[in-house]
This record gives sequence, C-alpha cells and structure tokens, in this order.
Amino acid sequence: MNEIIKADLYRYGGLSGTKGLIKGLRIPGCRYMYLLRQVASSKRFSIKWLFFSILKHKYDFKYSFQIDSKTEIGPGFYIGHYGAVVINPKARIGKNCNVAHGVTIGAANRGKRKGYPTIGNNVWIGTNAVIVGNVNIGSDVFIAPNSFVTVDVPDHSMVIGNPCTITHRENACEGYINFVS
Amino acid sequence: MNEIIKADLYRYGGLSGTKGLIKGLRIPGCRYMYLLRQVASSKRFSIKWLFFSILKHKYDFKYSFQIDSKTEIGPGFYIGHYGAVVINPKARIGKNCNVAHGVTIGAANRGKRKGYPTIGNNVWIGTNAVIVGNVNIGSDVFIAPNSFVTVDVPDHSMVIGNPCTITHRENACEGYINFVS
Amino acid sequence: MNEIIKADLYRYGGLSGTKGLIKGLRIPGCRYMYLLRQVASSKRFSIKWLFFSILKHKYDFKYSFQIDSKTEIGPGFYIGHYGAVVINPKARIGKNCNVAHGVTIGAANRGKRKGYPTIGNNVWIGTNAVIVGNVNIGSDVFIAPNSFVTVDVPDHSMVIGNPCTITHRENACEGYINFVS
Repeated sequence: MNEIIKADLYRYGGLSGTKGLIKGLRIPGCRYMYLLRQVASSKRFSIKWLFFSILKHKYDFKYSFQIDSKTEIGPGFYIGHYGAVVINPKARIGKNCNVAHGVTIGAANRGKRKGYPTIGNNVWIGTNAVIVGNVNIGSDVFIAPNSFVTVDVPDHSMVIGNPCTITHRENACEGYINFVS
Repeated sequence: MNEIIKADLYRYGGLSGTKGLIKGLRIPGCRYMYLLRQVASSKRFSIKWLFFSILKHKYDFKYSFQIDSKTEIGPGFYIGHYGAVVINPKARIGKNCNVAHGVTIGAANRGKRKGYPTIGNNVWIGTNAVIVGNVNIGSDVFIAPNSFVTVDVPDHSMVIGNPCTITHRENACEGYINFVS
Repeated sequence: MNEIIKADLYRYGGLSGTKGLIKGLRIPGCRYMYLLRQVASSKRFSIKWLFFSILKHKYDFKYSFQIDSKTEIGPGFYIGHYGAVVINPKARIGKNCNVAHGVTIGAANRGKRKGYPTIGNNVWIGTNAVIVGNVNIGSDVFIAPNSFVTVDVPDHSMVIGNPCTITHRENACEGYINFVS
C-alpha cells in the first residue's frame, strides 16, 4: 500500500493493513480519500487512472465532496461525515488535518488577500467553517464549526466565531486530532 | 400505525391516516423519519429490520442525513428540506422538535462540556446551526440559522449568532413549531 | 436558444452558442438552471414539461438543490458548486446574482419581517449564508459566507458576520460577479 494511503487510513481509528483497508473503505471519508489518492498517483489516462476517476466522480456527488485530485493535501487527511466539502484546487493543506461536512476552503478574488489558503499540519476544521483567501493557517489550529476565517492564524490557536476571534492555546487540537502516525 | 410514526406524520401539515401517510412519504423529511422509526422498532436482523435498514441507508445518502436509528428522538420530529443533517447517536432530543438542513448536533471531545447535547421539547433548530458538547437545551427554544451553540440554554429562549447570545422569550417557537398533537 | 438560458449560460465564463451550451451542461449549476428554465418555460403537463421536470427532479437530489421552477429568478443566475441550496418559491431574485452551496433564502413566519426576501441585481451570496424574512436586499451587494441576514440591505453594500454588519462599498461585487451580459 502507498505510504500516503497508509497514513490516511491510520487516521480512522488506527486502521492498517488489508483488513483495515476493507474496514476503512466502508467509511465515506476514508473511501473517498482512497479513491482520490489513487487518481492522484496514477498516470493520466492510464486504465488505473480511468477506473479510479470514474469511481471518484460517482462519490463526488454521493458525498457532495468537491476536491480535485491535484490538490496538495498532506498525508493523514481525515474527513468526518459527508455533505458538501469544497476545496479549491490551489489551496494547500499540510499533514494530519481534519475537515468536517460543510467546510469550504476557497479563493478570494480581490484585495490584499486575493488567492488561496495555505493550511499547516494538525489543523482541525469544524462543520460549516469557511476559510477564504490568501491566508496562512499555522499548525495545531482548531477552527470551530461555523467560523468564517479570512485572516492569518498563528500556530497553536483556537479560532471561533463569525467574524472570527483567535486565542492562543497549546495543544489546540488535543482530543480532536487522533491516531496520528 | 405506530404511535410515534403518527406523531411524526402529524407534524407535516396535520397529516394522518393511510392517505396522510401516502402524502407524507413524498416529503423527504417525513419519508426518512418513517424509515428510521421502522428500523428502530424492528427486531435486529429480522426481515422487516433488514428491509427498512436497506431503504434507510439509501436515503442516508440521497438526503445526506446521518441519523442513527438508535438515537433517542422524541415523537413529532420534523425535518425541513434535505441536505446534511448530522446527529450524534448519543445526543437526546425531546418531543416536537424541528431540524433544518445543515444542522449538526455533535460531541465535544474534551473540557467541561465533553459529551453530547440534551435537547428538550418544542425546540426549533434553523439551517446550518451547530450544537455541540454536553449542553442542556431547554424546551420552547428557537435556535436561529447559522448559530453555534456550546452553552446551556434555558426554557423559552431565542438563540442567535456566532458566538451565540441568548434572550428570554415566552412562546419562542410561535409560528415555527406547528401541528403539535 | 431562449434569452434567459443565454444569459445564464454566459455567466459561466462567457459561454454561448451550441458549443457553449454543451460545455455548460457539464457544470452542475449551469445544467440545473438549464433544466429549471426549460421547466419554467414549458406548458404544464406537456411532453416537454414532463421530460424536463423528471430530469430536474433527479438533479434536485444529486446536487441537493431545492429551487422551484416557479420562483422568480432574473436572467444570469449563477450557482457555484453543489450542495444544499434552498430558495423559498415566494422569494424574488433579480438579474445576474450568484449563489454558492449551502445558501438558504427562506421565509420568516412571524413578526414585522414575516414573509420572503426580495433580492436586487448583481448580488453575490457566499457559502452557507442564510437570508430570511421580508427583507429587501439592494443591488450590487456582497454577502459573505456564513452570514445571517434578517435586515434590509441598501445598494452597494458588503454584508459580513452573524449577526451581520453592513458597510457601504461601491462596486461591492467587483471580481465576484463576472461575465455579465
């Protein structure tokens, strides 16, 4: 098994090996990322690429996930539940991040924040949270559900509210980001 | 007809009887709750259980509803529209509650609010509202769309905003929770 | 091609003609609006009406869009992405508006704002924003993601937050509403 698929799989309660993969493929977020990683690691227009692209396309709609396989997403990506998750293909996401249903990571089209988010490692993004523009989200950041984030966020932060407020906290994602390999 | 299914059905514009059920089954929220109640009241692994479980599973994805049949939900539960509704199986919900699309009722994983929400009777929860943690939501509570709720809410309250503010109001759900049997 | 379909199509990167339509039909928002406009312009219960109604019904669930074909929506309507979009059939929307996934435009059931929103021209409504009640949203208005709007909004405004705040800005939708015919 591909290293990145291993890392993703492990995030789902510590799953590993073929048995773990079979279990994992029954979990929407895990199944989807498996397909996405397969597409990403296949040669374009190869049989393998075609096979996984068609399957991924099906689940794009079944789960309402809109994540391009070319998006830079680090190993250990976890999607809890299903329901509209939209990530701009030019956003970048680090290792061991969690994203819930309803999350959007998108572009800003003008102003000094024009561009796409860059997200560090161990970032937890709650339900319906929206992050837009050329902002840097540090590592070990907890973004509460329904937050609207259009500013830089330093490492070890809690982000809550709309407009959002940022407070410093060590181990911001304690209890929320688990099974990190 | 099962008493709890009767109570659910009545919430949809006062529907009752076989004719009412046929009408109700054309409404996504009503159809889904009918299937969920049938699963909940069937003996596990019986033919009836299997039949309704398979149907419910189909609609879990069609409507993007993620509600376990073992969740404690009182009679007269109303789901308006479809689109991601996620309820933690350990949350408890009282009688005659309304939930809109985009609503999440979830767990907090740490701190003094670690746990699951307990929601009273006659609670209206608007679009995209998120309630998390071991909080007590009283009865006759109106939770506005897009609210983020992580605190206890007393009876007869209006909850609005992110972070949310709570104001007292008698008949908080007047005009919003209708057809209560 | 019907004038209103032409105007919708043009919003998707300036598409036009039969070639443009074929491209546009591969974009969820464009495909959906094409079907909706066809239903709206067909004689009820005609073969054409039936054909497009059945197709639209399929995509109501595939995209989680809940927009009635009788809703008054001006030409040049753009839906970015897919995932629950709910518009009350009695709401009115002007020309060249943009709506993202997660947006709800709904009724208020009581109080001085009882009723449905009226939305002007060139209004951009971001992800998960919710607008409810008998409110007038002017023209050239930018409504940020996750906003909750229950008040009138004048022309040339930026709306952000929950509860929302309104600030004046000329060309509020610059860079966000493009390809306006």
